[in-house]
Amino acid sequence: MCRKWLVDAVSERRAEETHRQGSAVAVLFTLLLTTTILTTWLFKHRRCRLLHETGLAMIYGLLVGVVLRFGVHVQPDVIDAPLSCVSNSSPPALLLNISGRLYEYTLRGEVSDTQGQDAPNAEILRKVTFDPEVFFNVLLPPIIFHAGYSLKRRHFFRNLGSILSYAFVGTVISSFVIGVVMYGCVALMSALGHLGGDFFFTDCLFFGAIISATDPVTVLAIFNELRVDVDLYALLFGESALNDAVAIVLSSSIVAYQPVSSSSHSFDGGAMLWSLGVFLGVLSGSFALGTAAGFITALVTKLTRLRDFPLLETSLFFLMSWSTFLFAEACSITGVVAVLFCGITQAHYTHSNLSAESKKRTRELFELLNFLAESFIFSYMGLTLFSFQHHVFNPVFISGAFLAMFLGRAANIYPLSFLLNLGRSNRISSNFQHVMMFAGLRGAMAFALSIRDTSTYARQMMFSTTLLIVFFTVWVFGGGTTPVLSYMNIRYTHIYTITQISYSQDSAWPIRLWYTFDHNYLKPLLTHSGPPLIKTLPACCSPLARCLTSSQDYQVKNTHLYPARRCLVSEILALEL
Amino acid sequence: MCRKWLVDAVSERRAEETHRQGSAVAVLFTLLLTTTILTTWLFKHRRCRLLHETGLAMIYGLLVGVVLRFGVHVQPDVIDAPLSCVSNSSPPALLLNISGRLYEYTLRGEVSDTQGQDAPNAEILRKVTFDPEVFFNVLLPPIIFHAGYSLKRRHFFRNLGSILSYAFVGTVISSFVIGVVMYGCVALMSALGHLGGDFFFTDCLFFGAIISATDPVTVLAIFNELRVDVDLYALLFGESALNDAVAIVLSSSIVAYQPVSSSSHSFDGGAMLWSLGVFLGVLSGSFALGTAAGFITALVTKLTRLRDFPLLETSLFFLMSWSTFLFAEACSITGVVAVLFCGITQAHYTHSNLSAESKKRTRELFELLNFLAESFIFSYMGLTLFSFQHHVFNPVFISGAFLAMFLGRAANIYPLSFLLNLGRSNRISSNFQHVMMFAGLRGAMAFALSIRDTSTYARQMMFSTTLLIVFFTVWVFGGGTTPVLSYMNIRYTHIYTITQISYSQDSAWPIRLWYTFDHNYLKPLLTHSGPPLIKTLPACCSPLARCLTSSQDYQVKNTHLYPARRCLVSEILALEL
Repeated sequence: MCRKWLVDAVSERRAEETHRQGSAVAVLFTLLLTTTILTTWLFKHRRCRLLHETGLAMIYGLLVGVVLRFGVHVQPDVIDAPLSCVSNSSPPALLLNISGRLYEYTLRGEVSDTQGQDAPNAEILRKVTFDPEVFFNVLLPPIIFHAGYSLKRRHFFRNLGSILSYAFVGTVISSFVIGVVMYGCVALMSALGHLGGDFFFTDCLFFGAIISATDPVTVLAIFNELRVDVDLYALLFGESALNDAVAIVLSSSIVAYQPVSSSSHSFDGGAMLWSLGVFLGVLSGSFALGTAAGFITALVTKLTRLRDFPLLETSLFFLMSWSTFLFAEACSITGVVAVLFCGITQAHYTHSNLSAESKKRTRELFELLNFLAESFIFSYMGLTLFSFQHHVFNPVFISGAFLAMFLGRAANIYPLSFLLNLGRSNRISSNFQHVMMFAGLRGAMAFALSIRDTSTYARQMMFSTTLLIVFFTVWVFGGGTTPVLSYMNIRYTHIYTITQISYSQDSAWPIRLWYTFDHNYLKPLLTHSGPPLIKTLPACCSPLARCLTSSQDYQVKNTHLYPARRCLVSEILALEL
Repeated sequence: MCRKWLVDAVSERRAEETHRQGSAVAVLFTLLLTTTILTTWLFKHRRCRLLHETGLAMIYGLLVGVVLRFGVHVQPDVIDAPLSCVSNSSPPALLLNISGRLYEYTLRGEVSDTQGQDAPNAEILRKVTFDPEVFFNVLLPPIIFHAGYSLKRRHFFRNLGSILSYAFVGTVISSFVIGVVMYGCVALMSALGHLGGDFFFTDCLFFGAIISATDPVTVLAIFNELRVDVDLYALLFGESALNDAVAIVLSSSIVAYQPVSSSSHSFDGGAMLWSLGVFLGVLSGSFALGTAAGFITALVTKLTRLRDFPLLETSLFFLMSWSTFLFAEACSITGVVAVLFCGITQAHYTHSNLSAESKKRTRELFELLNFLAESFIFSYMGLTLFSFQHHVFNPVFISGAFLAMFLGRAANIYPLSFLLNLGRSNRISSNFQHVMMFAGLRGAMAFALSIRDTSTYARQMMFSTTLLIVFFTVWVFGGGTTPVLSYMNIRYTHIYTITQISYSQDSAWPIRLWYTFDHNYLKPLLTHSGPPLIKTLPACCSPLARCLTSSQDYQVKNTHLYPARRCLVSEILALEL
């Protein structure tokens, strides 16, 4: 009994100590972010556009990493000494997060394996290491939702065809090109005797998928300040938001590709088909879930008058969007992807139902969450360069990766732009294409995907190389955007009043079909805009239509002379855009 | 090797399953909150003030608890069957949160002990049970910060003396009275043979501390709508915000009281002194930390011009406030209490340095966080009545607790009001006193304190009883506020233009001293208001004063004719209020 009490007291004390240390680590990160914010302010105050806040956050993270690795000297025994009587239990794991998964500060499986060849401050470095799943379950969702929610709807939907081509076809091309180049590179390394472990073709394709996820943050921040051409902005933003989704689903499908004889790693048709099934299933499932959540929120905000109570409205909006993520995770679909589609749907339908106050509140809330999550990820990236203890830096692989990255991006942008220009009246100029090529920065998503699994030699090398690619692109490309844009002479121009009509007339038929459907059925159903459902739905559905048209709709719409049942696309576009 | 891979795969699958279940539980709670929001809207829409959203949240939680306990039938074997080969490892614990501590869904120590006499759906009920520390580290901090940040400064500081008396002296009196009454009640139970375990006098005092934490939410929401007298509002709000802090520190000091011979539980002078030391140390430490964080944020926002960038300003504000909590936890002081003082300081100094945009953003952000956290706690409370599997309901103890609660509150309010009225020119009328007596609802803090430790018989009985007290006070007192207020004839009155001067002249000397110090030194140092530091500081400090006076201060203050170095208190108050 007394012994049990003693053990309880000791384990209680240990839990307390772990909590104390966890809080101290969290204080470290909040101070890091605070410093980043103050420096960002200083840069903005002095109108210095050389370095974006993400670049700054990385630098500070890097500095802290250096200090922790080389500057602090702690006797490893000191920390655990008073508790050493129970120290042969599991290693002190510090767990965090909200949605239920185990998030250990300690990287799983590495503690006991590698204690021999650890860095000098292994204990401290382990304490500042998060479980990689924290990125997917806590930090990426608000970032991705924010990207979807802040897509400039008008320009996004006008360029939908091109955006989808770049994001879907382009990302697959890019992944494949990078995969092939890296396979050649790995073969070269193997011939040179540089390869220290297995590296299969699927690994190369996986690396291709990781590195194809571009991050628009830095470049778009500068675009915003410079007020760059809205169509270019929409293309770039739309592409990089959607290609994150494609990259994440693609990489998980490649992981799902397990040849029947797992030792051979030869091509297996059945496994390939299974992979393709996973890709399409997860993508369409996430799409269905995200849009369904958006539709439900839109309907609720339309049919109730929550707009009189902005706090309730904002809370509902937040909860519904968050539950999309949770629901997708509970169904074993990718929550991050579902959240993107949810964000786009919320922006397209729900946003117009919200009160002016809630519109502002929701935007600001997600802007804040996005800013904090992003700053945290980038500063953590900087820290990781020194705190991660199993880096594999190989000059040949790194050079190959940089080359592959450029080739992959080029194989995405230039051929697709050429093909798209055949159908577009508002052509994507070659200057635009160069900027899109240049603006292909790699950021939070590439990092999160690469840190997710660092158990094998191949994955460790990929992780280290991805880290370098992110640093390079954010600092060099991010810093170089302003000069490049002024060199390319791309500025804000008032061309869209002309383009909207010309584009509307010769847009591809699926896009036109979507526009008609959206304008005649979805918008009247989910928002207070568009022609009343009673006019657009067939006569047999009129009881349903009457039920779904709110009294507000009647009032608003009876004062307008809306086009009759089948509107012309050009008229719709003229009204919408 | 192959076996290791198999075990890895199985444990991976188990982690995935746990994550999936965790997400499903989170979906359940978001849907609960969404339903609460929609019903709240319906009530507000129909102007029904019978039930506050907290009361509603409890009802929904209760319903879900009933369904989970009696409505769902799951074969316990089904869940774990595919993984049963490793099921003799630790029980499936689902962990959550941000700041580092282990938050297990399973209540520690109860899983293996009590599997024999569990409720029908023990497995499911365990899954919806959170580690109680989640309340202290995730949910209470935003609620308490919000309380501090939204204290109406003007009326709060005008009634500071009374508020401090009620919160400090009153809470201690109330805890002691409740403790003594409960000790009598326990003696009676023991005589009747109703007592099923140990129940010491310290347990009674602990119960007194828990039950003395009043929650202003429901009553104040109604006060706000009815625009009740501002002084009464300030007294009630200030008291219930500060008495939370006192209750939390008091209860932890009682826990720290460990007589040297732990088996005897007789009075021990040394332990008593140690307890007192813990009480004063934690309280003053939290106060120092919270105000220091507020001062630093105020200085930073004053000296930089972050106000041009509301996003950065809001982020900084959020991070600094959060780091107060983390820092306090890292120093083993109570973070929740530190956060309260931080909130008050931020409201008093930093708030006036913020841009109009950030003022709005920070208020809205914490309003949202507070709303979500509070709705969650109250719905969880409802759920717990059925999901908690070790309730001890004893009619004698429950009746005694209700009686003790009223006596404790009465012993706090009436004698103190009598004493305070001797010194106040703006007397607290007997109607006011009755309302304060009536408005002593018990809410989130009482619940969180009682659920923190439910390992012994005494604590389980306290927890069950606290739950009933919360339900009763929220539903009956909360619902009855409107009729009581109209019966007591307490409405918004414009009396404070008269009271401010009369009160300023005969306020107690410590309050007057504080006012002078705050106005002459702190305000000029930390904000852009008040007389310039150069005038108020002694001549020897003028270099320092010049350094701390921003150019903006010079500009602003040179255009005003400020009173010379030593202002009269009455003048200061006339300027401030």
